[in-house]
Amino acid sequence: MPEGSRGFVRDLRLRWACEEAGLSYAVATVPVDDRAINHLDRQPFGQIPCLNDGELEIFESGACLLHLARKSEKLMPRDPVGEADTLQWTIAALNSMAMVTVPWWFLKICGDDDNQLTGWLRQRLDHLEKVLSEREWLAAGRFTVAGQLMADALRISEVRAFSDRPATEAYVVRATERPAFKKARAGQMALFEAGDETGVPPGRPG
Amino acid sequence: MPEGSRGFVRDLRLRWACEEAGLSYAVATVPVDDRAINHLDRQPFGQIPCLNDGELEIFESGACLLHLARKSEKLMPRDPVGEADTLQWTIAALNSMAMVTVPWWFLKICGDDDNQLTGWLRQRLDHLEKVLSEREWLAAGRFTVAGQLMADALRISEVRAFSDRPATEAYVVRATERPAFKKARAGQMALFEAGDETGVPPGRPG
Repeated sequence: MPEGSRGFVRDLRLRWACEEAGLSYAVATVPVDDRAINHLDRQPFGQIPCLNDGELEIFESGACLLHLARKSEKLMPRDPVGEADTLQWTIAALNSMAMVTVPWWFLKICGDDDNQLTGWLRQRLDHLEKVLSEREWLAAGRFTVAGQLMADALRISEVRAFSDRPATEAYVVRATERPAFKKARAGQMALFEAGDETGVPPGRPG
Repeated sequence: MPEGSRGFVRDLRLRWACEEAGLSYAVATVPVDDRAINHLDRQPFGQIPCLNDGELEIFESGACLLHLARKSEKLMPRDPVGEADTLQWTIAALNSMAMVTVPWWFLKICGDDDNQLTGWLRQRLDHLEKVLSEREWLAAGRFTVAGQLMADALRISEVRAFSDRPATEAYVVRATERPAFKKARAGQMALFEAGDETGVPPGRPG
């Protein structure tokens, strides 16, 4: 996993949710280079993470988070209004926001600094800045998987550096200062530092 | 709404799901030009659709579909394995697939024909072609909201024309030949043709 991706690989989302909810978990790794052989039967796009929970196997980090949210009220309220609010902001993070931030970031690291997605990114971030200037968390008046996912979409360094949006920046800081995030991130980074502790050659974990 | 967007506006997703499930519904419109004034309090990014269901108001078409899916087994099975399968493929359509198809399409219609997202698009479509060559629907062995959303992501004309992937094309045809899709699409198109039937000036519905 390239240096810049460490601390951002999406198993962190599941670790973070489990830490928030107090759900115990174990992490297994898959070598990047052999994905096509040993991983596509579990994840059709060759991505990570996948979640094993009893008889269930689930891919897509967003789907895994919604599954975990149904196991713990700490991640999503149980009343219909709070649950619907969490659901809509979860999908907003995965679709309306990530659909712009991720390709914009990709074009930028390809060297296309002022790319054609920049206006779209600015518009989405402007809308969100307005929302975040009026509330602490996005959904249900408290931390949820929706707030977690949006923070994860916004904490990409290039997105944070894109412009001066104080409410959004305060939100990212608020989310990433949570002990559960710090523990999840430390857990992922420790795996990269350990290298071969799970039988994966150094430099090829995750 | 521009000519090319008619038949693709995302209220169609909700109409389609309601038609599949036999849920009754009514459609209200919002003028495009006044979105910032009368719509942002309901939809923070100024998009449509929003769903009203009793005490609930939900935005993001993906969230609306997951909400509807919990009201009707026709849209999602009730057993945990089938439900998890539907959830993961729903998120795959909204995130892993739409995150590439939509920005790629946007760059293409901006005139950037061979843009930097093309390789990423090819990779995602290749993976999906393999999956679709081995099954009729994506999740739970039958039509679900996941199958519906993926078909909706793939039926963009430019994506269909991008390359020769017979299983994917057959899948899009299979989905869009369903009576519920045809009825939903006809309903949306009729609204554009009617123009002012809901008090919206002709040429500015939806």
